[in-house]
Amino acid sequence: MKFLLFTFVGVVHLFSLNSGKAIYKNDISRRTFQEIKEEIARYKDVAKAIINLAVYGKAQNRSYERLALLVDTVGPRPSGSKSLEKAIQIMYQNLQEDGLENVHLEPVKIPHWERGEESAVMLEPRVHKMAILGLGSSIGTPPEGITAEVLVVTSFEELQRRAPEARGKIVVYNQPYVNYSKTVQYRVQGAVEAAKVGALASLIRSVASFSIYSPHTGIQEYQDGVPKIPTACITVEDAEMISRMASRGNRIVIQLKMGAKNYPDADSFNTVAEIIGSKYPEQVVLVSGHLDSWDVGQGAMDDGGGAFVSWEALSLIKDLGLRPKRTLRLVLWTAEEQGGIGGFQYYQLHKANISNYSLVMESDEGTFLPSGLQFTGSEKARAIMEEVMRLLQPVNVTQVFRTGEGTDINFWIQAGVPGASLVDDLYKYFSFHHSHGDTMTVMDPKQMNVAAAVWAVVSYVIADMEEMLPRS
Amino acid sequence: MKFLLFTFVGVVHLFSLNSGKAIYKNDISRRTFQEIKEEIARYKDVAKAIINLAVYGKAQNRSYERLALLVDTVGPRPSGSKSLEKAIQIMYQNLQEDGLENVHLEPVKIPHWERGEESAVMLEPRVHKMAILGLGSSIGTPPEGITAEVLVVTSFEELQRRAPEARGKIVVYNQPYVNYSKTVQYRVQGAVEAAKVGALASLIRSVASFSIYSPHTGIQEYQDGVPKIPTACITVEDAEMISRMASRGNRIVIQLKMGAKNYPDADSFNTVAEIIGSKYPEQVVLVSGHLDSWDVGQGAMDDGGGAFVSWEALSLIKDLGLRPKRTLRLVLWTAEEQGGIGGFQYYQLHKANISNYSLVMESDEGTFLPSGLQFTGSEKARAIMEEVMRLLQPVNVTQVFRTGEGTDINFWIQAGVPGASLVDDLYKYFSFHHSHGDTMTVMDPKQMNVAAAVWAVVSYVIADMEEMLPRS
Repeated sequence: MKFLLFTFVGVVHLFSLNSGKAIYKNDISRRTFQEIKEEIARYKDVAKAIINLAVYGKAQNRSYERLALLVDTVGPRPSGSKSLEKAIQIMYQNLQEDGLENVHLEPVKIPHWERGEESAVMLEPRVHKMAILGLGSSIGTPPEGITAEVLVVTSFEELQRRAPEARGKIVVYNQPYVNYSKTVQYRVQGAVEAAKVGALASLIRSVASFSIYSPHTGIQEYQDGVPKIPTACITVEDAEMISRMASRGNRIVIQLKMGAKNYPDADSFNTVAEIIGSKYPEQVVLVSGHLDSWDVGQGAMDDGGGAFVSWEALSLIKDLGLRPKRTLRLVLWTAEEQGGIGGFQYYQLHKANISNYSLVMESDEGTFLPSGLQFTGSEKARAIMEEVMRLLQPVNVTQVFRTGEGTDINFWIQAGVPGASLVDDLYKYFSFHHSHGDTMTVMDPKQMNVAAAVWAVVSYVIADMEEMLPRS
Repeated sequence: MKFLLFTFVGVVHLFSLNSGKAIYKNDISRRTFQEIKEEIARYKDVAKAIINLAVYGKAQNRSYERLALLVDTVGPRPSGSKSLEKAIQIMYQNLQEDGLENVHLEPVKIPHWERGEESAVMLEPRVHKMAILGLGSSIGTPPEGITAEVLVVTSFEELQRRAPEARGKIVVYNQPYVNYSKTVQYRVQGAVEAAKVGALASLIRSVASFSIYSPHTGIQEYQDGVPKIPTACITVEDAEMISRMASRGNRIVIQLKMGAKNYPDADSFNTVAEIIGSKYPEQVVLVSGHLDSWDVGQGAMDDGGGAFVSWEALSLIKDLGLRPKRTLRLVLWTAEEQGGIGGFQYYQLHKANISNYSLVMESDEGTFLPSGLQFTGSEKARAIMEEVMRLLQPVNVTQVFRTGEGTDINFWIQAGVPGASLVDDLYKYFSFHHSHGDTMTVMDPKQMNVAAAVWAVVSYVIADMEEMLPRS
């Protein structure tokens, strides 16, 4: 996941769902809500069959095992790398062998950045080798590195206030972790803000909920007209130590060396597979996760898990011999971490067909035990989603939160298509996010089973109902 | 902490503490337990004064701030290093400036091992740079490294069963984490057991309760007559991945390079300070932690925290103008991590005086919020300790567990002296233990305040009571 824009506001029930009369004004459907409820309730046995297969049956642990095989084989899959290319080839083959339909690749030009060799050594007040990770898209330093005194600040406001002190220095941001969407601004804009006040480089405290001296990388963005300076993340531990040293009046000097380089855009693909709809094949429920990752760890959690429970959703439906009325489309995005490049390309290519998209789903915030679904859509659509989620009572995952989102599906959501995402333990997610620790060790097969069951039930029922989800 | 030998068995109450008659057979004291209880209860106001000063008063956060200053200034303090030497010099000065008595250094010869440059790269089935940390006392590899196929096992039993496969290989132990004292045997003896079956090197899964791709080092021990082979720890994540790869039939090849070297023993010191007893100055309550650490992180938790709450205990007592009847002796051990070298030396030097030791205390398992005290001693002594711990009701730390221990005090405990240690969150402790993550970020000033209060109340009251703690 690159960054989040939503604010988490919890569960909301706006309708009396027991009402038998049409509760919607200007309802496109002439059916009463009671009729819709009854239609959804008839999926109870199908939902149970999906759950039984995913959680207790022969498909249990399948998405975990499939994912482990891929990420152990190819490792991390950064945008523009050979390993991402290899992963896409493997997945293309996997999806065909799985018997899915219309398996194909949609070309996308994607950024190609490599970190190269990198190091940071504190020279004063004491020699200390620091763990760092260059931030995606950062330029490198000269080969001899940048050796400069440090100005440490805890916020952009403090940087502004102390702007005259920043010139010629390395700015260290020791911003507290509030939540990801707020704190990630320091990763994304830290270099630009530091460059504006004359800094030579910037280092940010890793955006992480928990640390064992673990740097957490991610994309950063330069700005036209502002000098490009090298930028990396350091650990929470080092950021706090530097802050303590500065508060004692210590002069702090760091030597930063980064071999980071941006290469010409590379060829890549969104990977697509379908179960073609029986009655409205042109209408789509899109289920997705991204196949690329950062270049550290295994990209098992971000977003191997999301990609593989999405695949698993289609596998489960196919294994049960089900074919919904609408087309279920799996998309495994490329270059999400570079800012949703694959997702944007897909939107450009397919937006003419937007009226046929009933629901867009992306899992990119972990596939631990889900507590429910985040959903963005009209209140009518939300009421329907709440009914659908009742089908997941057997695995006790029934809540519908606000706000569904995902870097790759936000284009559709902003254009009015209902969107859904999985909700789970974000504290755990941001403990490992974009770090060397994003490996299969974080993943739990039983939790992935439940996540896949939720994903399959929701996507199948929405794809099979008589009518598309109503929009605002 | 090097390794633990105790088994945790919880709280036990053997006596009816409300009984007014002498409950001990062969009691050396002619006083009834009721009289002892009353004596202890009279310390209620003193205990409150200590707690108020440590937790709410002007001493709050002092041990944290003192520790941060030391470990930020000198960094990690491995046995035989210049930084350990510097830390001892600083502490010698600190203790004098604090107004403590009889501040002195007791010479100890200690091991001097350095890891040098080290790396491990998986070459097959895919190229993957692995995080490692050589284990203390390990020899290095030849400069070109050791490149060999891997045999991965989950236990010593599996290694025995598959002994013929081990010759010429690198043995990887992927032993599960049961608890520290059990699992650490793989770190301590892994190289010896692998060498016995002809392995060229051994890598152990880090002994840790939690991991973000963090290697956790520690001492290992060679055995006379068994070839010395290089040995290091790898991360939990890599050990699990290697295990998965092996289970799929992959051939795994690793190149291990270690510049580790053992140097001649170095000069060091146990650092001692006292509050000399007013009535029985030759009798001692010993309060301690170790000043050395591993060479990664800051040694803030292991055992900066233990050393500094021990110092703080004496500071608090001195600040309140208290002087117990017996001598309160602070010892900051050297080279604990190499197997309690400083502790052993101290025991040899002072054991002639063993009958004068009322209680030995060591904090070396964290100074997070304590849940109570671990205690080893006669049932009579335990009953007294339980009364003393009632004085800590204001901070809700009243439990007396079995079994008090500490690498540096076990010599005394085994010889019959009552021993006590702090109990806190061992899951948290072993998340950071011996890793780059052992830094001030783990430490909580408010929790250290409480730990120091417990340590001060217990040591003061035991040092000031009319009689020494009874032995078995």
